[in-house]
Amino acid sequence: MPTRLTQLFLRTLREDPADAEVQSHRLLVRAGYIRRQGPGIFAWLPLGLRVKARIEKIIREEMAAAGAQEVHFPALLPKEPYERSGRWETYGDGIFRLKDRKGADYLLAPTHEEMFTLMVKDLYSSYKDLPLSIYQIQDKYRDEARPRAGLLRGREFTMKDAYSFDYTDEGLEISYMAQRDAYERIFSRLGLEYVIVAADNGLMGGARSEEFLHPTPIGEDSFVRTDGGYAANVEAFTTVAPDPQPTEGLPEATILDSPGTPTIATLVDLANDRYPREDRAWTAADTLKNVVLALTHLDGTRELVVIGIPGDRDVDMKRVEVAFAPADVEPATEADFDSNAGLVKGYIGPWSPTGPVLGLESATNIRYLLDPRVVDGTSWITGANEHEKHVFGLVAGRDFVGDGWVEAAEVRPGDPSPDGSGPVEIARGMEIGHVFQLGRFFAEELGLKVLDENGKLVTVTMGSYGIGVTRILAVIAESNNDEKGLIWPAEVSPFDVHVVATGKDAAVFEVADALAGRLEQGGLEVLYDDRPKVSPGVKFGDAELIGVPTIVIVGRDAAEGFVELWDRRSGERVKLSVDEVVARIG
Amino acid sequence: MPTRLTQLFLRTLREDPADAEVQSHRLLVRAGYIRRQGPGIFAWLPLGLRVKARIEKIIREEMAAAGAQEVHFPALLPKEPYERSGRWETYGDGIFRLKDRKGADYLLAPTHEEMFTLMVKDLYSSYKDLPLSIYQIQDKYRDEARPRAGLLRGREFTMKDAYSFDYTDEGLEISYMAQRDAYERIFSRLGLEYVIVAADNGLMGGARSEEFLHPTPIGEDSFVRTDGGYAANVEAFTTVAPDPQPTEGLPEATILDSPGTPTIATLVDLANDRYPREDRAWTAADTLKNVVLALTHLDGTRELVVIGIPGDRDVDMKRVEVAFAPADVEPATEADFDSNAGLVKGYIGPWSPTGPVLGLESATNIRYLLDPRVVDGTSWITGANEHEKHVFGLVAGRDFVGDGWVEAAEVRPGDPSPDGSGPVEIARGMEIGHVFQLGRFFAEELGLKVLDENGKLVTVTMGSYGIGVTRILAVIAESNNDEKGLIWPAEVSPFDVHVVATGKDAAVFEVADALAGRLEQGGLEVLYDDRPKVSPGVKFGDAELIGVPTIVIVGRDAAEGFVELWDRRSGERVKLSVDEVVARIG
Repeated sequence: MPTRLTQLFLRTLREDPADAEVQSHRLLVRAGYIRRQGPGIFAWLPLGLRVKARIEKIIREEMAAAGAQEVHFPALLPKEPYERSGRWETYGDGIFRLKDRKGADYLLAPTHEEMFTLMVKDLYSSYKDLPLSIYQIQDKYRDEARPRAGLLRGREFTMKDAYSFDYTDEGLEISYMAQRDAYERIFSRLGLEYVIVAADNGLMGGARSEEFLHPTPIGEDSFVRTDGGYAANVEAFTTVAPDPQPTEGLPEATILDSPGTPTIATLVDLANDRYPREDRAWTAADTLKNVVLALTHLDGTRELVVIGIPGDRDVDMKRVEVAFAPADVEPATEADFDSNAGLVKGYIGPWSPTGPVLGLESATNIRYLLDPRVVDGTSWITGANEHEKHVFGLVAGRDFVGDGWVEAAEVRPGDPSPDGSGPVEIARGMEIGHVFQLGRFFAEELGLKVLDENGKLVTVTMGSYGIGVTRILAVIAESNNDEKGLIWPAEVSPFDVHVVATGKDAAVFEVADALAGRLEQGGLEVLYDDRPKVSPGVKFGDAELIGVPTIVIVGRDAAEGFVELWDRRSGERVKLSVDEVVARIG
Repeated sequence: MPTRLTQLFLRTLREDPADAEVQSHRLLVRAGYIRRQGPGIFAWLPLGLRVKARIEKIIREEMAAAGAQEVHFPALLPKEPYERSGRWETYGDGIFRLKDRKGADYLLAPTHEEMFTLMVKDLYSSYKDLPLSIYQIQDKYRDEARPRAGLLRGREFTMKDAYSFDYTDEGLEISYMAQRDAYERIFSRLGLEYVIVAADNGLMGGARSEEFLHPTPIGEDSFVRTDGGYAANVEAFTTVAPDPQPTEGLPEATILDSPGTPTIATLVDLANDRYPREDRAWTAADTLKNVVLALTHLDGTRELVVIGIPGDRDVDMKRVEVAFAPADVEPATEADFDSNAGLVKGYIGPWSPTGPVLGLESATNIRYLLDPRVVDGTSWITGANEHEKHVFGLVAGRDFVGDGWVEAAEVRPGDPSPDGSGPVEIARGMEIGHVFQLGRFFAEELGLKVLDENGKLVTVTMGSYGIGVTRILAVIAESNNDEKGLIWPAEVSPFDVHVVATGKDAAVFEVADALAGRLEQGGLEVLYDDRPKVSPGVKFGDAELIGVPTIVIVGRDAAEGFVELWDRRSGERVKLSVDEVVARIG
């Protein structure tokens, strides 16, 4: 039976909800798909649930095609497995924790690596049982600091999470590619543009990790790409270091007065004013900026580090966070400077582990890390670790070395890509999927081993593969709308066709009734606007807002057997006989 | 494609799990349907998830047939709506509560009346929008004091909960019957025996409430029924009071010594020994037992009440709890007796609000409530409110009255049913569904009103209708098994047919492959035991344990085109040609 608008639990809104920041959120609420129930928490009305079910159906089909089997784990889980993996700690404030009536600790699971690992350990014991890929479509929980953008970053959200289990690295690569291929099919079927970017491996020490990003200006992630096919998220980008240069023949370093130059801009001005160079002016790129950061390690200890990067770049905190994970990173505070007399704010220079270089004074043994661009033979203006003094012509490799390298500087358009495919551009994207070779991290922590062909116990290697179902729905809505409302791709539209009866003529409603029934008989899901006393303008407005891509208007010409077929996306309307409409869309 | 046992994520167990109390739990774990993840918390393996999906499909079909629309609400909810309804308090320890990173209070919803009410309030405003029935199939949470019996009483469990909205009582009755009828169809399709019993209305003051109970010795509920069609759960049973009798001419009451008779048994013995009656012996039914209970009201105040019931019956605490809800009830403590000198333990007698009767001393103004059987004109032996003294021939209505009536006494087989359909029997059942006319409780509390035909605001009247999906699955397993394993009804079996290839002959596996493929092509879901090195005995044992009702054995006769069709329930095996098998089950 067609779904009648007089029956459907729906109320469309003319006004945007006050708290909606993005178009998908505004439209999904206004068109009656979802309603907010709390920060980052939503209820699904019939229209929304239909779209969600269609997305889940596509995912299930492609998971089956990839050989993955569906299971279902609880959302409410005891602490122990997450304690064994260390994530009970590392999640910090990011998860919901609770106690039961006996005081035992539980969490609302944000992801299920531990539980899947333990389940496979419970059931399987031999290489013959592998490979195995299992998945679930399940509601997950994260206590986001700032839930935002409607469904795009919720605190309760639906995910498909899959996990693969192999006993060889080659097996993992095959399982990984099966999921990766399935993701490509899923996003193609959903009509969702995506870029696969190399991603940071995180803490788990896995071999390979890629994100599927949907390019969109409201994306939370920055990613870099080249025309030559390279793509990576900013955290995973690796800097191309220039070749080292010989240090012989370079001028000696000189410490010079530099009053009132605590910033790169003031320093460059003073250098050009007081110590000009003959061939060309000094620029920020000639300076070495030394940035002090404070790390908080998992055991709670606090450590300062100094990072030397070219003065024309800023530190990218997201890249730094990845570089120092699992430690938390923040800029050093005034108190940090106060308690480290060797850190002369505004005039910090390098030092080496073997002591101050070139007579530069430093009372600290703080780690000093360098940007990969600061190769041997490069010459810099940098702080002299003394108030209102800088050193000119300080040469890396000759006058100072670092304690190591760090990917801390921002990536900029035009930077060379690590694969040599050309200069990068930077775009914004929303993560819609993630495939991840976890390797043996969880299997080691939780003791998942199987007997191999030789009867030897080997640790299993795993992959994890996530798709945000509710996020995808929002991304589709975000990318498929106009000023009048939503425009669903046919595969995920809540209905296949929307029949609108207009006017007050009973004959019109009879024709519309019959047509809606005939289309539904033909296997389509039909939304039928049978409201008797609503004006055509309101009905058309609702149809445009709801966004079923194919609309049939049954109006005055119905008596002569003619109706209008309206393509929501193109706006095109054509007059056709009822039979022609059925033939074309039925 | 058939599901191959070499691929299926499954491990059957020979041993019962140590913590399993009931057969459904034992078998669902042993046959690889579920695994425990914590107390009352389970994961679903592929076989279990398939059965669950089939049950949910049946429920969805019947909900649609009843005109109910599917929605989906969050499990994680803010406190406020539950605070407004008062249930944040009344749930006590029975729900999971938690705080988010900002310290705001949340709960994991055990049921969603508040949220559905507020959603309808948000969307609808006119009688024209009603009636409305909406439902969800959703994971719910209760922090059970003693999670037990596997899925039968879990802490995370799946429910279908529906809610109806009407603006007249007649409308509610129609909506209620539509759900009630749907429940009857659902349980019939599931092959689940059920009894519909009148249930207690609870705190919400609704008009009508019925439970669907599945009769089973492991049931948690007692219910009463008659051959004449009456059925009620014990809490909802109403006592049939005898007609009042004239008090004229009855002998005077007399206070007599009764040393060492603090119990009914000792009192009856003493009465027959020292004060025998001519026509017949005294029995416990001649005595009036006065039981002291302590109520704890919602505001925390404690109140004692005394209940007078015939001495041959015990107080049924479940019935008492319902009678005094929302107060908590417990037996009075020694301290209660100590601080109420008027309560002479073992010798308590009635008193009336106007003071002690017949000179019986009482220093208390505790409420005194009576069993409905203690009608005017009945004569009793009861305590004289004085140590080692009882009064004989104390007549209700003449010598004492109560402050009210209470359904406190146990129901016993042979008691008359309130509808006059004969003596009741008492059975045990497991609640599998509940239909409930909530009336206007939630709509009042949360302000859900609509404009009626006359433009007048009227409060909406509601019903709520629940089915425990995971519980039903367990109940079906509980009622469909034998010593060898599960025996699923066809409608909910994880597969339609289980093809077992035996032996080592490649030709056998070719025939089995082809047959499994052919059956699957014909629209059946096929489980195919293609394990190459497993003995027939193990394969048959697994087939019996897993419990697909139709099994096809492909063995030695396969070369001649013959296979065996095995009915799991009857055990019958018949030799048939492959074509005959396909014709019969395909």
